[in-house]
Amino acid sequence: MTMTHEQLAARIAELALLRGTFTLRSGRTSNYYLDKYLFSTDPEVLRELGRLFAQRVGAIERETGVRVQRLAGAELGGIPLVTATSLETGLPCLFVRNAKKEYGTAKQMEGKLSPGERVVFVEDVATTGGQALEAVKVLQEAGAEVVAVIATIDRLEGAAANMAAAGVRFESLFTKADLGITE
Amino acid sequence: MTMTHEQLAARIAELALLRGTFTLRSGRTSNYYLDKYLFSTDPEVLRELGRLFAQRVGAIERETGVRVQRLAGAELGGIPLVTATSLETGLPCLFVRNAKKEYGTAKQMEGKLSPGERVVFVEDVATTGGQALEAVKVLQEAGAEVVAVIATIDRLEGAAANMAAAGVRFESLFTKADLGITE
Repeated sequence: MTMTHEQLAARIAELALLRGTFTLRSGRTSNYYLDKYLFSTDPEVLRELGRLFAQRVGAIERETGVRVQRLAGAELGGIPLVTATSLETGLPCLFVRNAKKEYGTAKQMEGKLSPGERVVFVEDVATTGGQALEAVKVLQEAGAEVVAVIATIDRLEGAAANMAAAGVRFESLFTKADLGITE
Repeated sequence: MTMTHEQLAARIAELALLRGTFTLRSGRTSNYYLDKYLFSTDPEVLRELGRLFAQRVGAIERETGVRVQRLAGAELGGIPLVTATSLETGLPCLFVRNAKKEYGTAKQMEGKLSPGERVVFVEDVATTGGQALEAVKVLQEAGAEVVAVIATIDRLEGAAANMAAAGVRFESLFTKADLGITE
């Protein structure tokens, strides 16, 4: 089945919106938390998100005239999202690690990037955009041309401005308002 | 397109089999390394693997008479595999972390497990099976009934015996021999 944008937003809120007091990655506290894993571990929702990301990638290509060659996501929350989008688009992907691992082939990025490849970075929940910008930097240093960052949900706490300041195109599938979060 | 088992094995070896001297997670050294990310970031291969995992889950259900309710995978390598299998089967999944995170909702397992749920754990490359057994323990302590562990590739270095000793059903889609590794 295919859900409308509104139905999917309602389903995500139903699955993943938690109320309480939470300390975010940035150190700030919040009276709500979006547990992204509660929607990304649901195959019906994840499939719909993969389709929406794929549509956005297509729209970005048409608007910019740039052909996207690869997708990327950051551990851990971005991995199911970029995987679903990769399966939907047929584009290969990259996984960006938070820190270097110590065994096997040590690297901060998993997968294979060719220099100059045009990459769209898929993010889970954007707050200030700090994690996405760190990952974008890893990708750029590895030679990627990062065409855009697409977040699943924008909490509207500075990500758009920070991405703009960094010269990175940013959009989101949903904002917190779409999920009925008004504070 | 659908690949035969042999074609898929050859494609995995082509993408992911590296020769050299590598230190494995267990501390042992090896003259080959399977960079699982080089096949799991390829959507064509990943889709085929998702189908094979789904077939195995179905076969396990028929053989045991147990209905599998959920899939699980461990970060980072297991996440694209369990995601693809979840999308293929329609079964929801769980992501097992290596260590607890410190922000937001602190837990070693992401997703939602109901007590007594029957879970199949999807693994990337099994060597001694140590990582899979750690994840199985996390799942069991959280109340899961772990029906089986299915590895993508079994390096044939003790995983089957260690899983049997722990009372966990274990199988693999491929062994190193299927990939043409003879040492």
